[in-house]
Amino acid sequence: MSKRAFNFCAGPAALPDAVLQRAQAEMLDWNGKGLSVMEMSHRSDDYVAIAEKAEQDLRDLMSIPANYKVLFLQGGASQQFAEIPLNLLPENGTADYIETGIWSKKAIEEARRFGNINVAANAKSSDYLSIPGQNEWNLTPGAAYVHYASNETIGGLQFDWVPQTGDVPLVVDMSSDILSRPVDVSEFGLIYAGAQKNIGPSGLVVVIVREDLIGRARSSCPTMLDYKVAADNGSMYNTPATYSWYLSGLVFEWLKEQGGVDAMEKRNRAKKDRLYGFIDSSDFYSNPISVNARSWMNVPFRLADERLDKAFLAGADARGLLNLKGHRSVGGMRASIYNALGLDAVEALVAYMAEFEKEHG
Amino acid sequence: MSKRAFNFCAGPAALPDAVLQRAQAEMLDWNGKGLSVMEMSHRSDDYVAIAEKAEQDLRDLMSIPANYKVLFLQGGASQQFAEIPLNLLPENGTADYIETGIWSKKAIEEARRFGNINVAANAKSSDYLSIPGQNEWNLTPGAAYVHYASNETIGGLQFDWVPQTGDVPLVVDMSSDILSRPVDVSEFGLIYAGAQKNIGPSGLVVVIVREDLIGRARSSCPTMLDYKVAADNGSMYNTPATYSWYLSGLVFEWLKEQGGVDAMEKRNRAKKDRLYGFIDSSDFYSNPISVNARSWMNVPFRLADERLDKAFLAGADARGLLNLKGHRSVGGMRASIYNALGLDAVEALVAYMAEFEKEHG
Repeated sequence: MSKRAFNFCAGPAALPDAVLQRAQAEMLDWNGKGLSVMEMSHRSDDYVAIAEKAEQDLRDLMSIPANYKVLFLQGGASQQFAEIPLNLLPENGTADYIETGIWSKKAIEEARRFGNINVAANAKSSDYLSIPGQNEWNLTPGAAYVHYASNETIGGLQFDWVPQTGDVPLVVDMSSDILSRPVDVSEFGLIYAGAQKNIGPSGLVVVIVREDLIGRARSSCPTMLDYKVAADNGSMYNTPATYSWYLSGLVFEWLKEQGGVDAMEKRNRAKKDRLYGFIDSSDFYSNPISVNARSWMNVPFRLADERLDKAFLAGADARGLLNLKGHRSVGGMRASIYNALGLDAVEALVAYMAEFEKEHG
Repeated sequence: MSKRAFNFCAGPAALPDAVLQRAQAEMLDWNGKGLSVMEMSHRSDDYVAIAEKAEQDLRDLMSIPANYKVLFLQGGASQQFAEIPLNLLPENGTADYIETGIWSKKAIEEARRFGNINVAANAKSSDYLSIPGQNEWNLTPGAAYVHYASNETIGGLQFDWVPQTGDVPLVVDMSSDILSRPVDVSEFGLIYAGAQKNIGPSGLVVVIVREDLIGRARSSCPTMLDYKVAADNGSMYNTPATYSWYLSGLVFEWLKEQGGVDAMEKRNRAKKDRLYGFIDSSDFYSNPISVNARSWMNVPFRLADERLDKAFLAGADARGLLNLKGHRSVGGMRASIYNALGLDAVEALVAYMAEFEKEHG
């Protein structure tokens, strides 16, 4: 195959063709300087301009208020699972966590290693098919923060509302739905997102943190995990993941050209409406998630007979519809339809699903 | 300029043209699969094969014994400064450190936050111009480990010998000279190296660790910083820096094609002999480091009159000889001549230096 496939991978995920073409063109010679971006000193004027433009474009896209720092760090969201309590949870304090799936559960398990964690609500009772309303949450008065995952990549469960926690800082793992639709950053104390879904390549995690939450790290916190050190050094206390940061900047530029997150919301709404609409109209395919908690980004679905799964995946691969296999913990199929995928990808998938159903249904 | 410059950057540093050309060709379509390596799931067969080949090639290049694990981690060498004591230093133990410049000093400062650190030898007394012989070291009997930096990137000071520490594990920061000449891995308990000099892009750090040193992490060690977790999961406990790992693999392939580290030693010896030879033959340029401790990789030098520094750098830039400015803490010039640079780069630099001396000397 010499053309691009439709890549439904949950992450590392598809990137826009235009971004990859630009990176390809600039690979050996950025801007006529005779070197690749990945060969530049992170302290050079050229690279600092690339990094600062990326940050500014992200600030523009998300309307990030001036009293928030944007950090470009390493270690992925999983390292943030420790970094957040090490920075925000006093040794004798309590943090509230909401469990809605595998990723929020991992965050809870790691945070427990550093202090007192209260699981204020748990979607386990619904088998992770719906999200408990906030009136059912058992929040701790004076908690250090409340943590949740806005979208569960594996389960396909997404908040379509933002928890209200008053003066208690709200911390959100937005790895798999950041930039997919507008959010009001001022509602959050801290937003973090692994890059490899809607931002750029893996090996980069973006942290957007309100300034008053910086500078509280425990004395036992490794320097590289201290938000204050990162913030005071413009995310360059040591050499950052320069090429991933640059590629993320190209994605941000592309997003602005597309019309920003408002345009993405429209595009993503059309995509998920088409896919869920088709699934719901079929007796052959099914998605079990409560309608108001269905993810716009990750759509798990099952075939009526799981013995057909292999044939379905093989046929999809042959048509250039890649990475539709569901996570091993869930089974079935999963179509991840992040920003980089257009409605054409979903139409191609639906056409194949219809064809497969006709043949095997 | 439409051609490639000679890039003497200390890091992120020059990569081989052949590696960048291959990455460029594969950017949108790896192996006819219709997607970029950075869009692949790290759990996919294709990506796992890429990652495993990279590891095997590194094992071949360095003749890494079977009882060592090779880890591809994030956070750079600076995160290792904490990770090493968190994994190897018992709360009541002592570790010995050798201070030979800015990087080993940073390692000491970070390690002190986690336990008792003895600076067993310090090059400060010689103004970091020479390395104290081991007969002058004040090693701690029963130390948890001995740590040193085999090459100080900023000062240009390099060990041309390996410390002998008996049963005490030897831990080395090899960030800026790994793969530049042969080493006997079995002499070390742990070798670590940020990728952005001789391996690949920044955002990746390679750790080569003897198996008996794995599984000793403190209970307070974040999961992502625990060598056992990384080792047990093939460096994929979470999503690794997949694209950087792939590019490092391309560098390893290139190194094998060039003849491996033996060939690199020859190439690097010729480069450093030519550059130091020219500097020593000149009254205009100087390098103050003791001859047996001069770095093969980073060559700091001064002009006779520092008021000429700006003119020197401007003329170099105009000739496509980039990033020769010395580190701000040292001043003067620095030519970093890692594996990716050939003798032609050094010849071009020496020709310019001679020309500049003739004009201004």
